[in-house]
Amino acid sequence: MQTELSDQLGIEHAVFGFTPFPAVAAAISRAGGFGVLGAVRYTAPDDLRRDLDWLDAHTEGRPYGLDVVMPARKVEGVTEADVEAMIPEEHRRFVRDTLAAHGVPALPEGEAAGWRITGWMEQVARSQLDVAFDYPIRLLAGALGSPPPDVVTRAHERGVPVAALAGSARHARKHRDAGIDIVVAQGYEAGGHTGEIATMVLTPEVVEAVAPLPVLAAGGIGSGAQIAAALALGAQGVWLGSLWLTTTEAELHSPALTRKLLAAGSGDTVRSRALTGKPARQLRTAWTDAWDDPAGPGPLPMPLQGLLVAEAVSRIQKHEVEPLLGTPVGQIVGRMTEERRVQDVLDDLTRGFERAVDRINRIARRSGTS
Amino acid sequence: MQTELSDQLGIEHAVFGFTPFPAVAAAISRAGGFGVLGAVRYTAPDDLRRDLDWLDAHTEGRPYGLDVVMPARKVEGVTEADVEAMIPEEHRRFVRDTLAAHGVPALPEGEAAGWRITGWMEQVARSQLDVAFDYPIRLLAGALGSPPPDVVTRAHERGVPVAALAGSARHARKHRDAGIDIVVAQGYEAGGHTGEIATMVLTPEVVEAVAPLPVLAAGGIGSGAQIAAALALGAQGVWLGSLWLTTTEAELHSPALTRKLLAAGSGDTVRSRALTGKPARQLRTAWTDAWDDPAGPGPLPMPLQGLLVAEAVSRIQKHEVEPLLGTPVGQIVGRMTEERRVQDVLDDLTRGFERAVDRINRIARRSGTS
Repeated sequence: MQTELSDQLGIEHAVFGFTPFPAVAAAISRAGGFGVLGAVRYTAPDDLRRDLDWLDAHTEGRPYGLDVVMPARKVEGVTEADVEAMIPEEHRRFVRDTLAAHGVPALPEGEAAGWRITGWMEQVARSQLDVAFDYPIRLLAGALGSPPPDVVTRAHERGVPVAALAGSARHARKHRDAGIDIVVAQGYEAGGHTGEIATMVLTPEVVEAVAPLPVLAAGGIGSGAQIAAALALGAQGVWLGSLWLTTTEAELHSPALTRKLLAAGSGDTVRSRALTGKPARQLRTAWTDAWDDPAGPGPLPMPLQGLLVAEAVSRIQKHEVEPLLGTPVGQIVGRMTEERRVQDVLDDLTRGFERAVDRINRIARRSGTS
Repeated sequence: MQTELSDQLGIEHAVFGFTPFPAVAAAISRAGGFGVLGAVRYTAPDDLRRDLDWLDAHTEGRPYGLDVVMPARKVEGVTEADVEAMIPEEHRRFVRDTLAAHGVPALPEGEAAGWRITGWMEQVARSQLDVAFDYPIRLLAGALGSPPPDVVTRAHERGVPVAALAGSARHARKHRDAGIDIVVAQGYEAGGHTGEIATMVLTPEVVEAVAPLPVLAAGGIGSGAQIAAALALGAQGVWLGSLWLTTTEAELHSPALTRKLLAAGSGDTVRSRALTGKPARQLRTAWTDAWDDPAGPGPLPMPLQGLLVAEAVSRIQKHEVEPLLGTPVGQIVGRMTEERRVQDVLDDLTRGFERAVDRINRIARRSGTS
């Protein structure tokens, strides 16, 4: 699965794996793909430094990248307390009531909620970048809008290409105009924040919109046949996130969540604002149902919702309260039916790709096309 | 674009074109595809007979098929008046108010609303079948559940294969168990009634669920590259509906609607219950916005909604009231940017398919795969 882009980046397979887990990112890069570590959860620079040290020591010299969330809008001088103050009491009560209805215990004393709004703030993203550029990262990726011009310049000065996620051709053109090098076209079926245009339609639209920039297809890709389809649509590679969640290297630390992921079908996800306030695809749970119920108060806008539910989500995860337990994941979750090593996943993608190419060629020969 | 299935059916391209227009169906078959005429609008058997006479005379002996809506649930002895009586006055008032707000004139005296609920009733579907089997149709297709066993038997006795649409692997397995010969896997991005699972994910799931039955991919397919992608995913062909709406052979009889279709982007559709009460993808309009507005009464369930809005939709179409004017169409509408002959559309699909196969093969050769 080699393309011009994978050759340029010096990787064997044009498979980009986004993951919050250093062990997964390292295994993807070692297996010939391109591991991209998600930085959003690193609010302390030293934590990121520690994990990048580890990652760098475990990729056997293969390229890896970092994904930083750069907020599109700058919010100057706003503190977490300011944002906290904007959350209505009705919504706080709804969180308490929903947790109580499912008997969710409190966090152990002294344990902080994992997710903080600060990970989504520009100053934190910039401190992550200060750390990142101390390492030989080979790709800087960003969701939620194009990275600011000075960040793009800084990356380019170090010879680091910049990738950005887009859910529409318009969005992709903005990235191109901002000097981005690679556009990740992320379809409706993807896990996490996602738009309404499906990968089958979005990929060629984005390819045409930003040509000759290379495009990675994201959303709905978890097999070699789906990689072949994405490349047929004009992508120069694929961007996979969900598929790694059930690898043995993933550090979900929740056997119950892993079981739910392995059991879920493609119809068991929902695009909901429950997690962050923006539509994000995730496992459908009693928690998302509560937020999506018209009888409830409904989710707040970003960043309020994320802050509102941070502690609740930590409690649900900590105590593995099964009906409420979820995670961002794409429709491809239906294909995740057993825990496998990252290397085995990559091998399987390669074999499936070869079979799909053979199938297409049998059809093309039958048609006298090639 | 030949597959085992297209060879079996004696067609040049594994491109199945669904259309309500006989002239489009005939042109698709003449161009080497497989034209499938939608029968739902023929409430009078003689009208269907007249159009099948015409179709049969204009396909130059090439195969064509018929798509009949067989309701999954039998409603014995229920008349249109019974259904009318179930519609709340609040909803009737909402229709009147919305039309009045946009100054939609009444229909000319004596002109009936086009769409009637009867087209969706089993006795009407059966009368359509009585007509259809007088013609050498080569495919019987059905949406909304598997056709009843006696209909499948009747088709098979005449050597006519039966196809049915599915939006999930579970749905597809039901079709297989009902003796269906071909499953049309219709993804989220498709026009008309559609589920939530996108084509990229749905196609291989359905292929695996019903193997060795052939599967056609539907939804998001409007280019040769998208056909190549669908075949890479394991489909034996593609089922296209939207793409024909802006062909010169289409009898939309509404220049304003054609203009709207040509101008629309992939983000200008919505999956709404406004049309029939079941989620159907269509152009987003002031009409769908009104029905999807939480402040309004919201759509009624099928078949009430279709009956409720039938006259209103006819008035909107008749008078081409632009803000309200819509039609079922998929996200592929963004690719429909000029009126073209059906033959030109097919030629373009073929060329695009060849280019996509070349691209995949260049990648495969680079990878040492083939």
